[in-house]
Amino acid sequence: MTRYLTLHSIEEAKSIINESLKKLKNEVEEVDLFNAIGRVLAEDVFSNIDIPPYDRAKMDGYAVKAEDTYEADEDNPVELKVIGSLKAGEIKDLEINNGECVEIATGAIIPKGANAVVMVEYTERDNDRVKIYRAVPPMENIQFTGSDIMAGELVLRKNTKLTPRDIGVLAAIGKSKVKVYKKLKFGIISTGNEIISPNEQLEFGKIYDINSYTLVSYIKTLGYDFEFFGIAKDDKEELKEKIKKALKCDIILLSGGTSAGVGDLTETAIKELGGKILVHGIKIKPGKPTIIGKIDNKLIVGLPGYPTSCLTIFDVLFGDEKNVVKAKFPVRYISAKGRVEYLPVILVKHKNGFSAYPITKGSGAITSLSEADGYIIIDENKEILENEDVEVHLFGDVKVGLNIIGSHCIGVDIILKEAKLLAKTINVGSLGGVLSIKRGEADIAGIHLLDEKTNTYNIPFLEKYKVKDAVLVRGYIREQGFMFRKELGFKSIEEIIEHIYKLEFINRNKGSGTRILFDKFLKDYNINPKEIKGYNIEAKTHSAVATAIAMKKADIGLGIRTVAEQYNLAFIPLANEHYDFLIRKERFNDEDVQNFIKALKTAKLPFKKPDNCGEIIWGG
Amino acid sequence: MTRYLTLHSIEEAKSIINESLKKLKNEVEEVDLFNAIGRVLAEDVFSNIDIPPYDRAKMDGYAVKAEDTYEADEDNPVELKVIGSLKAGEIKDLEINNGECVEIATGAIIPKGANAVVMVEYTERDNDRVKIYRAVPPMENIQFTGSDIMAGELVLRKNTKLTPRDIGVLAAIGKSKVKVYKKLKFGIISTGNEIISPNEQLEFGKIYDINSYTLVSYIKTLGYDFEFFGIAKDDKEELKEKIKKALKCDIILLSGGTSAGVGDLTETAIKELGGKILVHGIKIKPGKPTIIGKIDNKLIVGLPGYPTSCLTIFDVLFGDEKNVVKAKFPVRYISAKGRVEYLPVILVKHKNGFSAYPITKGSGAITSLSEADGYIIIDENKEILENEDVEVHLFGDVKVGLNIIGSHCIGVDIILKEAKLLAKTINVGSLGGVLSIKRGEADIAGIHLLDEKTNTYNIPFLEKYKVKDAVLVRGYIREQGFMFRKELGFKSIEEIIEHIYKLEFINRNKGSGTRILFDKFLKDYNINPKEIKGYNIEAKTHSAVATAIAMKKADIGLGIRTVAEQYNLAFIPLANEHYDFLIRKERFNDEDVQNFIKALKTAKLPFKKPDNCGEIIWGG
Repeated sequence: MTRYLTLHSIEEAKSIINESLKKLKNEVEEVDLFNAIGRVLAEDVFSNIDIPPYDRAKMDGYAVKAEDTYEADEDNPVELKVIGSLKAGEIKDLEINNGECVEIATGAIIPKGANAVVMVEYTERDNDRVKIYRAVPPMENIQFTGSDIMAGELVLRKNTKLTPRDIGVLAAIGKSKVKVYKKLKFGIISTGNEIISPNEQLEFGKIYDINSYTLVSYIKTLGYDFEFFGIAKDDKEELKEKIKKALKCDIILLSGGTSAGVGDLTETAIKELGGKILVHGIKIKPGKPTIIGKIDNKLIVGLPGYPTSCLTIFDVLFGDEKNVVKAKFPVRYISAKGRVEYLPVILVKHKNGFSAYPITKGSGAITSLSEADGYIIIDENKEILENEDVEVHLFGDVKVGLNIIGSHCIGVDIILKEAKLLAKTINVGSLGGVLSIKRGEADIAGIHLLDEKTNTYNIPFLEKYKVKDAVLVRGYIREQGFMFRKELGFKSIEEIIEHIYKLEFINRNKGSGTRILFDKFLKDYNINPKEIKGYNIEAKTHSAVATAIAMKKADIGLGIRTVAEQYNLAFIPLANEHYDFLIRKERFNDEDVQNFIKALKTAKLPFKKPDNCGEIIWGG
Repeated sequence: MTRYLTLHSIEEAKSIINESLKKLKNEVEEVDLFNAIGRVLAEDVFSNIDIPPYDRAKMDGYAVKAEDTYEADEDNPVELKVIGSLKAGEIKDLEINNGECVEIATGAIIPKGANAVVMVEYTERDNDRVKIYRAVPPMENIQFTGSDIMAGELVLRKNTKLTPRDIGVLAAIGKSKVKVYKKLKFGIISTGNEIISPNEQLEFGKIYDINSYTLVSYIKTLGYDFEFFGIAKDDKEELKEKIKKALKCDIILLSGGTSAGVGDLTETAIKELGGKILVHGIKIKPGKPTIIGKIDNKLIVGLPGYPTSCLTIFDVLFGDEKNVVKAKFPVRYISAKGRVEYLPVILVKHKNGFSAYPITKGSGAITSLSEADGYIIIDENKEILENEDVEVHLFGDVKVGLNIIGSHCIGVDIILKEAKLLAKTINVGSLGGVLSIKRGEADIAGIHLLDEKTNTYNIPFLEKYKVKDAVLVRGYIREQGFMFRKELGFKSIEEIIEHIYKLEFINRNKGSGTRILFDKFLKDYNINPKEIKGYNIEAKTHSAVATAIAMKKADIGLGIRTVAEQYNLAFIPLANEHYDFLIRKERFNDEDVQNFIKALKTAKLPFKKPDNCGEIIWGG
């Protein structure tokens, strides 16, 4: 197998792309002026006409010989004979002599002999006579031929990105079409047997196509065009067929397929269509699955299948390099071995600027994509120290709002909804939340940490971790208990204990509050964990436990009541846990934070609220 | 006549508009996900599915029971039996027992019994056996059901402006359509007998439609829709017909008509269509011609005809209020009497931020539109002092580049083109250029100032105005002389003098170099200005003089040779003038400035270049 034999550096890959782009970017098309906004001029534009094209009135009034008005003032008007009238757009062969004038509308052609216009406000008309109450100097209220733009004058320079004002200028000189550089057109193909369109009903074993939608939207924000050619199964002939159709675009993007096998398929398809492979694998994390090929002069780029990786590699190859902000990196991080790493980060805005949190849940997660404001580049084998400066390459706009960093709970979503707050919720677990509060990054951290010694929640940990400048606000009580399929029919904890060695368990991950609770339960009832079936099978969320039970992969597990109900499972409570909110003092009086606390008190939550819900219980 | 009887404040006008917009902005439509970028969510979006919807492999490799691998290392591989294989999207009823494994592709469903995946890199396959060279803990390389997004979880909140990443999330949860707030749709009608489309050939007395194109482009950058209904003559029935058609849009904009009479026409048309007038005239400069009416629930807004005024009033009523920058105002300015003034400004970027230059050539000029980066708001009867802080409301992006402020010459355009420079050329005359150099705003000023006493150009003025920190670079020599129609047949200055009292002259404005030259000529030859026909008729540019002569409005006038040739006129030279470049020392070594000087030397100009062209002749 010739898998990843021709790993290239990112610089090599980019120079291959840039060379092709340079050629494509020189192609010119003519667009209608109504469609020219934001396009880049491919020509210097000169005016063929004078603007205005004739001497014209700037105001409604009377076209006069200025010297006839010199004696006029409010008490002693001068009377002139009105020999005609001129509206805008009207052409008449009128000429005035001394003592005469012409009624004239704004924009109308100045008649011969006239050298000024008196505003209508300073006149009084009586049939063919008009009294002038103000003297005007020569040229008053006249806009002269070519005084605005001269024929032959350069009005817009090549490479100008057209604004609404530029387009007004082009209209003014009678340019109804304009030569601009062609928009690049990307042809998009999704690949993968497991990929289906969001239009379709989800079947077991399938997932929805994400990358095509992310890519198309990003391509549009970059000002490029696209055409979507649908989803190709992992089938060489189908893939070749789609690539052939997409060859009418400038660049073809393949995405969706996640496995190395897909790369081989793409490589074969390109070769069999008479193309060649320029790059198979880029020496960065996550560039390994990237393929760059060429058929005739068209680039075919196979992007990684994981959503964040796909967007990252697309941005590296085709994005706006200048879209960068500086940030502090709040944690310690060691890069991937032997490869430069393009690490997705979530930006948290605070008074000293931005902090860039690494997104560590893996680029396979769609929430990683959702949270990733951009990425940082970390050199091979380099360690980033806490609070080091980094440059973040942005995927467009940074979302700002309240920073909620800690343990994830569906209650937080409900509170945010009730308070109508847009927040960044970063799920790093309870302990991660405590630390981010200490670093001054989180505004609010949801935590539920059981101290085994005192059998109390949260406060002992704040003291252990020496948290300062923060307060703990009482949240709500989550019921933890056993979830199982209803047909098992247990009515009490005792019945469960009776059958415990026969049951297939699914456990939670070490360090989670639920795991601590399960271990405490086993200890309290003198049950040997080694005899529990499935004790070593760990799931990371309540939901994953419930799914395993609902799908009969396991019989029973510990979790919160809300999730058990969602999955239509039976539930027998074991303990109550306090899910509280640690809030940075500095932000405590902010409107958003106060609205959050208000909503915590008023929102209808699927949890019990203690009487002191929403009150400060520590650090006030 | 009930002209401007119901002048409203800008606040009243805006509150009328905002009330209507609020209603319109609540209308919701469903769009396809490919078209959702930048749209604003009109609903909270919850996920109906778990993501991933099944436990899946994160890597290509072998699904195993983790405990089977605990003894494995590079020297002592563990051998497992491969009981089958699973690709992404494949559904098979496989279950592994101890000692067994399944070959698995990234994204494939984890088979029953497996709790970890060993990466293919750490394995060696031999038929139905595989050697495992690395131990894996439970959960390794598995992404669990719902661990990314739980069913029932809020994934995007109402009012989110959708980014590419958000759209990826929507695709992931199978949302192929999404509810967003409707885009406002503006119906655009141009009005005016003199207005023609840029598609048409220019006829005498007509001008091209500008406002429709500026407005449409601006509407697009604000994210709104439009439909263009063409140009209506100043005819009530035609206007009513177009308004009736445009009523299918949310808001109708009328623009182009410049005179107060047009306002009356609009008012009558709206009333005869059963509508009412809410505002006729806004108490700001330039808001007087604005009309706001309503037919049923549709707003009809008549905007001022002058391009910059039109864009300003549109921006005030419909633009993004937050698009504001701070700047210094470099000159003294007294606002319009009795009205708040919205003064268009051009922004000049320099090391201390922005300076906002007032655009004083009038909002009738299309170049005012081109130059206006935005506007400032000046209270009634208020004086802005030199260097006062102002807030500039922007019309979108600010254009930056070299600042060339001074006398306008076609030679500057040629040099800029040769040097391929994007520059802001602000034409404030030679003296204005000198002053802007003194204020540190202009980088380069083109000047041609004749000192009558010494009969030399430019340097005496720099000393008189105490210019420091600048150098004067020798430019080129412009030939001034008499321009006249060829059939007049003069061969020399003497022949002109012979016929001088019979000729119809057109003169230049006071303070212009050309006017000074003409007066000097008359004095030198003892000719009485009072006996010169047309001595008091003043034009502001060389081009306006040439036009008047070519169109037989006058016989003869003074101007530069280049323009005479453009207009196919005869030319008899009278004098040479030095057009030189004053350059701020601080910017002298900048690449742009050096390229400008290089191009000054090399460009083919329609002027004579002295031997020391491009050299410093003062202040070095």
